Amino acid sequence: MVSPLPGTGQVGYKPSIEHMTIILVYGKDPAMTRSLNVLIIGGVACGPKTACRLKRLMPEANITVVDKDAIVSYGACGLPYYVEGYFDDIEALTHTPAGIPRTPAFFDKAKGVTVLTRTEALAIDRVAKTVRVKHLDSGTESVLPYDKLVLATGGQAFKPRIPGIDLGNVWFMTHPEHAASLVREVSAQGLRRAVLVGAGFIGMEMAEALRRKGLEVTVIEMAPQIMPGILDEDVACFAARYLRSQGVHLVLGERATAIEGTGRVAGVRTDAGSYPADLVVVAVGTRPNDQLAREADLLCRDRIVVNEYCQTTDPDIYAGGDCVVNRYAGNLAGSTLFVPLGSTANKHGRVIANHIAGQPTPFSGITATSVVRAFEYTLGKTGLTERMARQMNLDIAVTTWAGQDIPHYMNASREFIIKMIASRRDRRLLGVQVAGLGNGAKRLDVAASVIYFGGTLDQLADIDFGYAPPFGPALDPLAVCAHVLTNKLDGLAHGIPALAAKERLDQGEAVLLDVRESGEARMVWLPFPQRIHIPLGELKARLAEVPRDKEILTYCQISMRGYEAQRILNAAGFQRVRFIEGGLAAWPYETASPGL
Amino acid sequence: MVSPLPGTGQVGYKPSIEHMTIILVYGKDPAMTRSLNVLIIGGVACGPKTACRLKRLMPEANITVVDKDAIVSYGACGLPYYVEGYFDDIEALTHTPAGIPRTPAFFDKAKGVTVLTRTEALAIDRVAKTVRVKHLDSGTESVLPYDKLVLATGGQAFKPRIPGIDLGNVWFMTHPEHAASLVREVSAQGLRRAVLVGAGFIGMEMAEALRRKGLEVTVIEMAPQIMPGILDEDVACFAARYLRSQGVHLVLGERATAIEGTGRVAGVRTDAGSYPADLVVVAVGTRPNDQLAREADLLCRDRIVVNEYCQTTDPDIYAGGDCVVNRYAGNLAGSTLFVPLGSTANKHGRVIANHIAGQPTPFSGITATSVVRAFEYTLGKTGLTERMARQMNLDIAVTTWAGQDIPHYMNASREFIIKMIASRRDRRLLGVQVAGLGNGAKRLDVAASVIYFGGTLDQLADIDFGYAPPFGPALDPLAVCAHVLTNKLDGLAHGIPALAAKERLDQGEAVLLDVRESGEARMVWLPFPQRIHIPLGELKARLAEVPRDKEILTYCQISMRGYEAQRILNAAGFQRVRFIEGGLAAWPYETASPGL
Repeated sequence: MVSPLPGTGQVGYKPSIEHMTIILVYGKDPAMTRSLNVLIIGGVACGPKTACRLKRLMPEANITVVDKDAIVSYGACGLPYYVEGYFDDIEALTHTPAGIPRTPAFFDKAKGVTVLTRTEALAIDRVAKTVRVKHLDSGTESVLPYDKLVLATGGQAFKPRIPGIDLGNVWFMTHPEHAASLVREVSAQGLRRAVLVGAGFIGMEMAEALRRKGLEVTVIEMAPQIMPGILDEDVACFAARYLRSQGVHLVLGERATAIEGTGRVAGVRTDAGSYPADLVVVAVGTRPNDQLAREADLLCRDRIVVNEYCQTTDPDIYAGGDCVVNRYAGNLAGSTLFVPLGSTANKHGRVIANHIAGQPTPFSGITATSVVRAFEYTLGKTGLTERMARQMNLDIAVTTWAGQDIPHYMNASREFIIKMIASRRDRRLLGVQVAGLGNGAKRLDVAASVIYFGGTLDQLADIDFGYAPPFGPALDPLAVCAHVLTNKLDGLAHGIPALAAKERLDQGEAVLLDVRESGEARMVWLPFPQRIHIPLGELKARLAEVPRDKEILTYCQISMRGYEAQRILNAAGFQRVRFIEGGLAAWPYETASPGL
Repeated sequence: MVSPLPGTGQVGYKPSIEHMTIILVYGKDPAMTRSLNVLIIGGVACGPKTACRLKRLMPEANITVVDKDAIVSYGACGLPYYVEGYFDDIEALTHTPAGIPRTPAFFDKAKGVTVLTRTEALAIDRVAKTVRVKHLDSGTESVLPYDKLVLATGGQAFKPRIPGIDLGNVWFMTHPEHAASLVREVSAQGLRRAVLVGAGFIGMEMAEALRRKGLEVTVIEMAPQIMPGILDEDVACFAARYLRSQGVHLVLGERATAIEGTGRVAGVRTDAGSYPADLVVVAVGTRPNDQLAREADLLCRDRIVVNEYCQTTDPDIYAGGDCVVNRYAGNLAGSTLFVPLGSTANKHGRVIANHIAGQPTPFSGITATSVVRAFEYTLGKTGLTERMARQMNLDIAVTTWAGQDIPHYMNASREFIIKMIASRRDRRLLGVQVAGLGNGAKRLDVAASVIYFGGTLDQLADIDFGYAPPFGPALDPLAVCAHVLTNKLDGLAHGIPALAAKERLDQGEAVLLDVRESGEARMVWLPFPQRIHIPLGELKARLAEVPRDKEILTYCQISMRGYEAQRILNAAGFQRVRFIEGGLAAWPYETASPGL
């Protein structure tokens, strides 16, 4: 019924009479009442999703997926976890949950979809409505016709043009074979020293994976912080402190200029230094595979431009996944975003299939949620960062909260921080970042939902979060953080971010007021000379000890008491008082303790 | 500046001159520009929250909290976890996260709030604006004036009037002393056999706690299912199967009629049997403490009626916490809900304080989110159950999904089920229930947010959930479940709930079609005689084996393949085909396997 498989010697493509059968389909378009030829270029995430969904909607459609790779429909996001040893069989990434390999035979028999692997799409002819493909094994070419074409061509790891990039023991991490060979070679060659170029998601995940395998790990990042596209400087700084505590050597603000070695890698040179290495993993972002679309004169602006049905400027050609730009769902006109994620790619696939079948479900866009685990930390964000919002010239209010994820009396409670950004004008939530040991992932998903619906801080704080000690405190951290931010907007809470506080203190412009209990204050403190310690309960009685001619920065463990102290001092006539947001728990710099 | 403490010999209350000081406050009401007397009855959750928030908003207000108990501001929800041994010091429940005991002295010094413990409110005089209180230690009475009165009187455990309820070794579980004495006596008396009366939250938590302490545990529940107010019958049945596997003896549909024993408990008698016991925990719901409000002629309808600012029918009297009814935030006019939770009580406290201070933040209501951990299962719901929706005569669509909480290739992935209820007319999400080992709590919080914002199934599926293998699959279970439900609404997916499937199969009205792989099908199966097994990949070639004159019920592990089989059979002209929702993974009844 469909194009002959490569290697059979038949290189042309001739529609059989079956293609002309008149059948009943679900679509409402009369033009679609003949059996539809749908051609999908790309066999990971968006492509297979489009194919399988569409086959369920239009059982008589002829659906063909072509991919130049030998395997399709694998979970690339799982690669670092295979390296770490979280699961033992890399085949699991290409298997269904029931353990069935997602091979072309599986797609044919279980899904009714033809998958042509090792088949590279060369060019689109929009007038003839055909795609010329090359069968890589035989070297032959075919021409495949389409009624609807889907570009699910994805992205590829960016390969910086630096000397040595093709040396042995240099890995990218986008294909199961990359992970498999890395694990093999670490063991076979006894590789010990890893240098990761790029401190984004894959850098974080590979740092964890390789440290857990016992390797020395150095991460080189061009930006002056880790996860530069994802986290603001302060949150990144907080996370970096933790990564260092896990034995990761972070080299920030240095650009890799060469990979050195003979035959195989011996080190990485940067614009500022040189780092020995037995293996290198390069993960400095992805680039869209949009060449086919550009050559077919489809509108591209950085990536392929699509409407909310994932149609390109040619309505018979759809595009989805990592090769397209997305609208921002959070109601900020003018902004498009590129976040290459399998989650979005799968949504695109469904949107495309639904639209082809005449059941349109417009895609609202993304809120740019990103989350990663780095050792025991959860790091992530949804919506806008403070930096993004300021670049967009938005009028924002920002705060940082620190505390436990579940009630403090539960042994399993863990600390984390939330940074929250809201619009001053209408108090809408614009962005949330999380970092720490506590369960930030749950809060990110809720925040993504609030941003999606255009919710305000008051609404966020009103949501009826599930409350039981194993899952959360009576007032969820998100709600408390929203309260802090509304308190700032209402002029009640005067917080200062850790970065600004450090600046003021380094310049000698402010006095620290520690309002913790004496026992706490003896254990660990912020190491600045201008420091007063008065437990909160004694503050009202000891106001005379607080200088009235200086700016006062209050703090405690999480700055709840710091905030109370600010209110007490304000009530006593002190004007220049701010609490350090997130207190000690969110402090990203060095602290002092008796042992040091 | 405030009322003398009990036991000082001064029993009257005389406002001092300081009360008349003209001060600047944050409120906009000119009548509030003198120092305000705020009296709060009740020292747990809502009461302290109101007091502390209000003191920060109005530093010069005189705020007094009275409570008849000797301790205040404790986390009662933590009691079962103390019993279980999750933390060692029960004092943690009355301490701040920084370890400071929340005593009257703490409230005075750190918060500027007067707390009078062992002080019982006897009557409200709304004309004189006073409350008569009794100091329980001295037996004396005082009259406390108020400008604003807050009833945060909470609820109390319902004590059924059955013989033996006052015997030794019968516990309720609402006060730290209950948990402390239970732990003490289990050890001192060597108690072995526990009977829990009531299979609600506390019943579930105590079943876990006491099993983990090595006791035999029987749970007696009057309703024919566990968690009757929270879970639908099918989800409860699914959870009950798990509880039994954890060694909990469930006695459902029996009413406890007497507690037997001499001096101390020996057993519990029901309307159908008798169960030996060394200790009994009674947890059959709470009753509101609304007597003061009723006697003061404030409108009560089951509980105290309040507006969105938590004002009673007397605008100078507020009420919050477990003693009030709540509006339903999910946009269903006419429905009020009673869900006694510390989370809601804390929100009420803030709403009350904000309104008194002239910064009103109306409370939208609750979506009735409830979550509990029972051993390793998470059980919970938000919004409406199917039963509630049908009682309200709503036109709904319902489905159940089963699957893993994170990608199946991750060792940490765990199965759970989601039951989802939506409005047919506008596809709004109405309710979600979760049960299983997987991370259902995260999905409940997101669902609570979607219901709060009146979101539809399409919107739910569009939310940009954080995607990384440690946290979730590419398409979040909530999104997939929403897809299944839209497929049902669109007439594509024909699912049948497990309960209905069992009925059809028990009656011999249907044939089971198992479309799993042979290896899977040999391990475990649904034990009905009319059973065909054809792996999905072979189905199209073996259609002749499927009877055309019978109703076909397809299934697999989670019924993704069951759904595909239904689509294939439909396309082949089979009309009466449904897949069993959630498949084997959500099947709440017995299964068969070779060992049995």
